[in-house]
Amino acid sequence: MTDLLDHLRTAVGDAHVLTADPDVAAYVVDWTGMYAGRALAVVRPGSTAEVAAVVAACHEAGVAIVPQGGNTGLVGGGVPDASGEAVVLSLGRMRTVRAVDPVAGTITVDAGVVLADVHAAAADAGRLFPMSLGSEGSCTIGGNLATNAGGTAVLRYGMTRELVLGLEVVLPDGRVWDGLRGLRKDNTGYDLTQLFVGSEGTLGVITGAVLRLFPATPRHATAWVAVASVEAAVSLLGVAQSRAGAHLSTFEIANRQAVDLVLAHLPGATDPLAEPSDWYVLVELAGAATEEGLDDALEAILGEGVEAGLVADAAIAGSPAQRSALWALREGISEAQKVEGATLKHDVTLPIADLAAWATAMAPVLEEVLPGVRPVTYGHVGDGNLHYNVSAPVLDGKGRDAELLAAAPDLSRAIYDSVAAGHGSISAEHGLGRSKAVAGSSYKSGVEVDLMRAVKHALDPRGLMNPGVLLP
Amino acid sequence: MTDLLDHLRTAVGDAHVLTADPDVAAYVVDWTGMYAGRALAVVRPGSTAEVAAVVAACHEAGVAIVPQGGNTGLVGGGVPDASGEAVVLSLGRMRTVRAVDPVAGTITVDAGVVLADVHAAAADAGRLFPMSLGSEGSCTIGGNLATNAGGTAVLRYGMTRELVLGLEVVLPDGRVWDGLRGLRKDNTGYDLTQLFVGSEGTLGVITGAVLRLFPATPRHATAWVAVASVEAAVSLLGVAQSRAGAHLSTFEIANRQAVDLVLAHLPGATDPLAEPSDWYVLVELAGAATEEGLDDALEAILGEGVEAGLVADAAIAGSPAQRSALWALREGISEAQKVEGATLKHDVTLPIADLAAWATAMAPVLEEVLPGVRPVTYGHVGDGNLHYNVSAPVLDGKGRDAELLAAAPDLSRAIYDSVAAGHGSISAEHGLGRSKAVAGSSYKSGVEVDLMRAVKHALDPRGLMNPGVLLP
Repeated sequence: MTDLLDHLRTAVGDAHVLTADPDVAAYVVDWTGMYAGRALAVVRPGSTAEVAAVVAACHEAGVAIVPQGGNTGLVGGGVPDASGEAVVLSLGRMRTVRAVDPVAGTITVDAGVVLADVHAAAADAGRLFPMSLGSEGSCTIGGNLATNAGGTAVLRYGMTRELVLGLEVVLPDGRVWDGLRGLRKDNTGYDLTQLFVGSEGTLGVITGAVLRLFPATPRHATAWVAVASVEAAVSLLGVAQSRAGAHLSTFEIANRQAVDLVLAHLPGATDPLAEPSDWYVLVELAGAATEEGLDDALEAILGEGVEAGLVADAAIAGSPAQRSALWALREGISEAQKVEGATLKHDVTLPIADLAAWATAMAPVLEEVLPGVRPVTYGHVGDGNLHYNVSAPVLDGKGRDAELLAAAPDLSRAIYDSVAAGHGSISAEHGLGRSKAVAGSSYKSGVEVDLMRAVKHALDPRGLMNPGVLLP
Repeated sequence: MTDLLDHLRTAVGDAHVLTADPDVAAYVVDWTGMYAGRALAVVRPGSTAEVAAVVAACHEAGVAIVPQGGNTGLVGGGVPDASGEAVVLSLGRMRTVRAVDPVAGTITVDAGVVLADVHAAAADAGRLFPMSLGSEGSCTIGGNLATNAGGTAVLRYGMTRELVLGLEVVLPDGRVWDGLRGLRKDNTGYDLTQLFVGSEGTLGVITGAVLRLFPATPRHATAWVAVASVEAAVSLLGVAQSRAGAHLSTFEIANRQAVDLVLAHLPGATDPLAEPSDWYVLVELAGAATEEGLDDALEAILGEGVEAGLVADAAIAGSPAQRSALWALREGISEAQKVEGATLKHDVTLPIADLAAWATAMAPVLEEVLPGVRPVTYGHVGDGNLHYNVSAPVLDGKGRDAELLAAAPDLSRAIYDSVAAGHGSISAEHGLGRSKAVAGSSYKSGVEVDLMRAVKHALDPRGLMNPGVLLP
């Protein structure tokens, strides 16, 4: 391995091959703290050519590679296992916005550009890059692409795979595929771009991308709405879609437990409504500067919601600051949960029509597995996607984290079995990573697993790209 | 081969294995008439199980399969070659709409359902399936999926691949992959659905699909607009996007030659404007029943266009009948060209910002290759996609078709070279089929062709699925 390390140092410079424990520490533990591994080295190339040289050297040495972006993943897909035999390839130094073309509606970026910086570059050109996540200040676009990230704008703009036009990828043998085309339409063969999106670093290393930009939507109408149930939320979604389908950009749900955590742990968070409610919806319409009538449309939605008995109360943002405060109640949940203590994260999709019944039926099942367990439920109801997270029971004012972790396999299995029986997905937007690779395959047919293995073997015959992730 | 035919008859019934020339004729010649082949047999299975039995029998016999939908393709991708050794597998009997779920926004269909029937089933449920093509009365959804069809609604709703959630596919060995999931979000592995979409029958046979439905848009505001140039059209597109981005559903272009053909050949077609113009744009806004202001927005777009010198004149549809008449001018072009005589079809994308300059520069190049040649140009300017078709020169009142066909290789090469130099695509939405398989690979890098071959070999190691199509 000394040979390989020498090769890597030659490829990227001594300063960018990290091997000392304190230097490596931040790269081998994931954001949740649930996955901690070891690495032969952490390599930080500064260009596509350097990535190619690193991958070629590892290929020759038969050493596995774990690509890593902002290390904000929630399923352990960007950190190495405990063997210490893999190289972590961090894209963090590749942070150049290569080009912005507002007429074509494209932006071309290095994989290591932070999502918030993509937003800023688009805004500077008078355009919108709509993908929006809680971690947007630190996640990278390469990681978003590798995991097909979702977020709060999927309802209107789609998942990451719908926002990308072309990719640059270093293949497992070190060759570079230049698929950086900025064309909306290109039917000249298999869609290799879509094959790499969501492949979680198991087929190659994404080093650059051409992304779609959209007309800016500087006008917003935003409300925080108290609803009685998931069912009421789903019905209100129907109202919003028929009254403002083209402008509806956000329709998020959170239960009271989730909001309580934000109010308890995030400085400055306040409840905008007088009375507590079991469930809340964050609804937002967005439009161009010349598009008027958003406020009227929002009021019509809420008015119809009140009349139909779906809406108990609502706070409408009257200023950008108020809008930010409402958004903070939703976006702060993940962080607040981390402060609260151990959490079992589940990220499930159900057919929207079944979402309410599923959530209602699930709680007592979990209570039976672990009495006192607290479902902290929130997510993207417009997409049928709930983050059905589970916090520890509280006894004598203390969270029983150890009990939660001991019951974790049973709790997760109960949830996944129920999701599978309901024709849902056990990972809506987080991917499979290490934490769900086995479960992911176990809920698929043999034919489907065979197909995935055939694709993997075709592109990475030596199995060196992020082994143990996505496929067990 | 007698054995195989016996197997096929057992699988689907004697009546659905066609071998006599008159029975087979319609299945071995494509819509353009440019591709005429021969077949060992035409097999018309009535169910997924029957498709699987047919494919398994062919796999065992080592016989190639050409899947066929409505046989409306424009690149010879759905008809067999001249060898007479392949079986044509027609999906035309599989025409069941399996399920419609207006709450989830999904429709599940057999591959052989005609596109217009998908529209009708969606409309019956108060929803919209937006894909719209000139051939929608006869093309099948399976063919649309296999070719990743485009059409006039791509601007707002995307290509076919953006409209599909899940697929059922019979694999080359006869196994069935059931990927019929109706979930908007499902990050549990490689996106096999997107791999099959656009693969032109070379990786398997699509037998069923779950498609996305959208809120119905019964309100329309439609105009036929005279503009001076492609450049003016692109500028007007910018105006339309900033004034009505969320409602803009159509932005199509046609040159005068194209419109002249429609006026000459289609019964009842009339020019809605007093003065002829070199270029026209069909622009349409669409909205829900409760969304008002579309007419005002359209007038604002046209007003700004007139003020900026982009718009010379415009006809606004005042009734559904008038709307249909304006649409007929655009949708009739392909049919009118067929009546006119031989046409070289090209379906190219350029970066939108370069579209005008490219079209301006191309005409004299073609004139040099074949004096008098007539570019009949139309297409989806909002997507950067032109159907840059070429009709024969006219001498003494007669189209010189033979001259056009003799010059075809040189004309097409000039166009493709120019598109490739301009970072465009030589097939925006029609696919590669037989007619562009060689050209498609020749404009790609060796790395990209290797990747495509690796995927093909992984899924169809014996090379029996639609050989000669997509990859040479």
